[in-house]
Amino acid sequence: MRMTELSQRSGVPIPTIRYYIREGLLPSGQFTSPNQATYDDSHVRRLALIRAMVEVGEMSIAAVGKLFRHLETKGGDEFVTLGLVQYSLTRELSPSDDSDAVTRVRDLLDQLGWRVNDHNPARSVLATTVETLDRLGYDDLLGLLDRYAAAAHELAEAEVDLMLAREGLDNRAGAVVVTGVLGDAMLSALRRLAQEDVTARTLRPTKTTKTRSTSPRRKAAK
Amino acid sequence: MRMTELSQRSGVPIPTIRYYIREGLLPSGQFTSPNQATYDDSHVRRLALIRAMVEVGEMSIAAVGKLFRHLETKGGDEFVTLGLVQYSLTRELSPSDDSDAVTRVRDLLDQLGWRVNDHNPARSVLATTVETLDRLGYDDLLGLLDRYAAAAHELAEAEVDLMLAREGLDNRAGAVVVTGVLGDAMLSALRRLAQEDVTARTLRPTKTTKTRSTSPRRKAAK
Repeated sequence: MRMTELSQRSGVPIPTIRYYIREGLLPSGQFTSPNQATYDDSHVRRLALIRAMVEVGEMSIAAVGKLFRHLETKGGDEFVTLGLVQYSLTRELSPSDDSDAVTRVRDLLDQLGWRVNDHNPARSVLATTVETLDRLGYDDLLGLLDRYAAAAHELAEAEVDLMLAREGLDNRAGAVVVTGVLGDAMLSALRRLAQEDVTARTLRPTKTTKTRSTSPRRKAAK
Repeated sequence: MRMTELSQRSGVPIPTIRYYIREGLLPSGQFTSPNQATYDDSHVRRLALIRAMVEVGEMSIAAVGKLFRHLETKGGDEFVTLGLVQYSLTRELSPSDDSDAVTRVRDLLDQLGWRVNDHNPARSVLATTVETLDRLGYDDLLGLLDRYAAAAHELAEAEVDLMLAREGLDNRAGAVVVTGVLGDAMLSALRRLAQEDVTARTLRPTKTTKTRSTSPRRKAAK
């Protein structure tokens, strides 16, 4: 297809597509003449992935570019490449130097028995969160860390199954991006909705109607 | 305490503190002379909360200001105010007009029996996510929506308990902010770490050592 059709099918304006090509986020099309190129379905899919990372995941163009460069380094170890892709989704956050939060996170991971690389940036995000909760006096939320970890691991088992069910490094890396970025957004939204439900049931219990007599809280938490 | 001490104790530079006061994010101190004011612990706590929202939650100053204005509207219904505080944490995202994702989200919430206001912006975030997954061809991840919802609801029950255990609207609103913003960051980090653990166990099973013989996956998912 031509650029015009690529823009229509992807919903991405032509100048933005040209920008992505210049920044190395999207491969050039196949040139059929010096100023005419054709594109295929792989370009449409790549554009959708870029939009998901930029719009839903709020990733910078630089971070998206870095991610795709990991994928282009062929011949590497698949586990290492998938790890680098995942790491590039995580925004760096650093706890204060004098914080013991890094040690607390290491102890938690040891206790859970999780095998996690020392360089996974999610460690420092978790440490920064722990430090901030501590500083704000929300030790009670820190008490829920084990439950958060258990929920995260249960979901991760299903997510990794889906990822490994795909063939080829590119498709598996796509799944890492999607379960990371869209999974975060989905879970965040569902938590907000669930919190409203639980709060409504507690502060406004009288509003329960007959249609909800089948104990939806228990049903939802099953 | 004086401005200098407030800056030292909060770790926030004086010009930033003055900016927050100008923007209405932080109340002025008590004036002891025309150009001398004193601050107290409530200012230190408020600054920590602002930093959590801005740095961890990546909220804009405008969004933080809007949130605090909801709290200052005294005399309103507590459930409504807490809802408005929660809504202001959610970044607006809109699915395409021709998408049936909004209906799918409504059907899901009906099926779960959750009581959620039509104006909760998390509905449109979830709809946008659903639409994007659909467009990217990740229907398999959509198949996990029920498990995500169950995990979200289980965590929400614990989070709302913590929130309601606090006294007074301000402290409860603080808990809504903290469980929202820091809870999202904590869960996102834990999901990344758990995904690496599950992937390592699947792609590199030989690396399991004796110290992890107590079936950590089962333990973590307990």
